[in-house]
Amino acid sequence: MSHNPRRQFLTQSAALAATPLLASFAGKAFADDPARKLGVALVGLGSLATNQIAPALQKTRNCRLAAIVTGTPSKAETWKKQYGIPDKNIYDYKTMNRMADNKDIDIVYVVTPNALHLEYALAAAAAGKHVFCEKPMEISVERCQQMIDGVKKAGRMLGVGYRCQFDPNHLECVRLAKEKVLGELKVIDANFGFAMGDPTQWRLKRDLAGGGCLMDVGIYCLQTARMLTGEEPVWFSATETKTDPVKFKEVEETILWQAKFPSGVVVSSVSTYNANGLAGFRAATQRGWFGLEPAYFYGGNRGKRSDGPDINFPVADQFATELEDFADCILNKRQSKVSGEMGLADVKYLMTIYDSVKKGRPVTL
Amino acid sequence: MSHNPRRQFLTQSAALAATPLLASFAGKAFADDPARKLGVALVGLGSLATNQIAPALQKTRNCRLAAIVTGTPSKAETWKKQYGIPDKNIYDYKTMNRMADNKDIDIVYVVTPNALHLEYALAAAAAGKHVFCEKPMEISVERCQQMIDGVKKAGRMLGVGYRCQFDPNHLECVRLAKEKVLGELKVIDANFGFAMGDPTQWRLKRDLAGGGCLMDVGIYCLQTARMLTGEEPVWFSATETKTDPVKFKEVEETILWQAKFPSGVVVSSVSTYNANGLAGFRAATQRGWFGLEPAYFYGGNRGKRSDGPDINFPVADQFATELEDFADCILNKRQSKVSGEMGLADVKYLMTIYDSVKKGRPVTL
Repeated sequence: MSHNPRRQFLTQSAALAATPLLASFAGKAFADDPARKLGVALVGLGSLATNQIAPALQKTRNCRLAAIVTGTPSKAETWKKQYGIPDKNIYDYKTMNRMADNKDIDIVYVVTPNALHLEYALAAAAAGKHVFCEKPMEISVERCQQMIDGVKKAGRMLGVGYRCQFDPNHLECVRLAKEKVLGELKVIDANFGFAMGDPTQWRLKRDLAGGGCLMDVGIYCLQTARMLTGEEPVWFSATETKTDPVKFKEVEETILWQAKFPSGVVVSSVSTYNANGLAGFRAATQRGWFGLEPAYFYGGNRGKRSDGPDINFPVADQFATELEDFADCILNKRQSKVSGEMGLADVKYLMTIYDSVKKGRPVTL
Repeated sequence: MSHNPRRQFLTQSAALAATPLLASFAGKAFADDPARKLGVALVGLGSLATNQIAPALQKTRNCRLAAIVTGTPSKAETWKKQYGIPDKNIYDYKTMNRMADNKDIDIVYVVTPNALHLEYALAAAAAGKHVFCEKPMEISVERCQQMIDGVKKAGRMLGVGYRCQFDPNHLECVRLAKEKVLGELKVIDANFGFAMGDPTQWRLKRDLAGGGCLMDVGIYCLQTARMLTGEEPVWFSATETKTDPVKFKEVEETILWQAKFPSGVVVSSVSTYNANGLAGFRAATQRGWFGLEPAYFYGGNRGKRSDGPDINFPVADQFATELEDFADCILNKRQSKVSGEMGLADVKYLMTIYDSVKKGRPVTL
C-alpha cells in the first residue's frame, strides 16, 4: 500500500498526522496502553455484531468498541447501556460523515448486509477512518474495486473479515499443505451450509445480499481452497438446485461448485441454505489426508490428519484475533493479509461460479 | 425373475431339475449340511479374488470355493494346494464350457477385468451356472443387457458384487435416511479415491477397464446415493482432470461429478486415482447429518450421526455376506437385491457422467 498507515491511524488530517508527536503512538508501546487502544465503530448491529463482534471487542488488546452506527434507536439505547458508549459516538447511517470530527474512532467495521458495504466503507474512508469490511466484500467486482479505490484515495487501510485466516487450525492445515507433510495436495472437498430459518431475513433478498448461500457460506470453502493451494483457480464449474422456490424466490438455495487450480488440485464444494451438517473440509494428498470438522464455526474448529494427532489448537476468539491483527497492521504500517484485493478476488470467483450456473458449463478464468 | 432358481441351482438340465428328489436340497436344511454347500468357481485370480474372496469363501455357511478359472498355471498350482481344489475343478478361460458337466459348481463368480465380465458370465450361464459378477457389471449398457439376457435365457440367477449393500453400517445409514430420523435427506457428499500405484495394471487399460477411477471407485459413491435416496437420478454434471497424462493415458485420473434426485437431494462426489484419503460419505439433512468414514473399505467401515452414538456395527466379511446372500437367493428362489438390473442402471449412470464430461454440460436422463 502506498500510504503510510502509522502516521494516519489516529488522525483525520494528513497535516496533523505528520507531526512527530504521533510517532510514539505506534507499535507495541501504544498497544499496551489501554487508553490508547484504537477505537472501532461497528456499522450494522445485527446478530453478528451483537453476538460475536461486540463481545470480541471486549477482549482485544489494541482496539476497543468505541462507537456504533445503527438505524434503530432502541438498539442504540441497548448498546449504549451495555457497552458504555457515549452519545457522541452513536451514529445513524445518515450521520456517518460526522465521524470525521470524532477522534475516538480509528476503524469502521462494516457489518451491514452485503450490498451496503460499499456505501458505508466509502463514508468511513471519507471521514478519515480505516475500514474493516465483513465478507463477502460486496456484491460485484466493480463495487469491490470502488471500495478499494475509495479507501486508497482516502489514504486509509482496508481489511476484509476473513476470520478463518486467523484460526490456528486453518493455519496448521495451510502449513501441512505448503510443506507437503503428507505429500502433494491433490483434492479438496469443502462444504458449508445450514438450514435457513427466518424467511424474512436480508440474506434472502437479492438487493441486499447479492446472492444466496454461495455469497454467505460458499465463500468459506473458496477461501479454504485458495489458502491451502496458495494459488488462484483456473476454472469453475457449478450447478444450482432449489427445493423451496418460495423461501428462495430471490437467491439460490444450493450451489454445487468445482474448481481446478494450476498445480492440478481440484476442489469439490457444496454451498447450501437447505441442510445442516456441512461445515468442514478434507484435503486429500499423495499419502493421506488432513482436514477440519467443523472448519467454519465461530469457535471449536478442529481436525484430524491421517498420519498424526488431532489438529486441535486452542481457538482464540476469531473476531478478536482478526481485529487485533488489523489494528496491528495500522499501528505497524503492515499490509493486512485479508486485503481488499483478496476480497475482490473472491467476489470475482463467486461471480464466475454464478456465470457457470447461468451458462450451464465450466467457465475458465 | 421368471425362472425357478430352486429347481435349477444344482443341475445343468431342466429335466433332471424337475425331479421331486431335488426339492429337499433347497432351503435351510440344505445350507446346514456342509457337504451340500453351493460350489463357487472363481474366474480371475487377481488380488481381489486372492486376498478377499477366496478367504471369504472359507467362512461361508451355504457356499464354498469349489473351482477356479485362471490363465496362469502357477496360480492354479498355488490355489490347488492352498484350498485343496481337485484338478477336475481347475479351468482355464478356454475350457469353461466344460463346467456344464461339473456338478461341484453352482455359482460362477466373475472377478476378471471389467470388459471380460460378459464373456465369462455368458460362458458360465451357457454351462448352466448361476452368475455372480464383480462391479462395475460391464463397460457398456449394451453389454450389461447382454449379460442379463444371456443369464436369463439360461434360466440362471445373476447378481452383482455390491458388497456395501451387505454392510450393516451402510444399511443403518439407509434406515436413517428412509425413516427421516434426522429429518429429510438433503445433500450427499460422497468421495472415493486412492493414489494409483502400479502403472501396468489392467485398471489403466481402456480396453480392459472401460474407464478409470469412475468405473472403479466412483461407482461406490453412486451406489451410496441410490441407496440413501431410494431414487433414480434426474441429471448428472461432471468434469474430468488429469495431472499425469502418461500413467493415465487411456483412462481418467479424476472425475468430479454431481447429481440431482427427484426429491431434490443433490450429490457431490469426487472419484480419483490421484489421491489417498477419500473414502467416505456424509448425508446432510434438515436437522443434522450422518455418514460413514471410512465407508468403502473391505472392513472397518464406521460412522457417526449428529444426534446420537457412533454408527459402528460389527462388519462381517462383506464378500462372505454377499455370497451367502446370493446362495440363499438361489436356495430360496429369492430375487437378489444386487440384481443385474441394478448393475446395468449403475453403468448407465456412469456412462451419463462420461457423457457430461464429453459434452461439457449437465446431462438430464
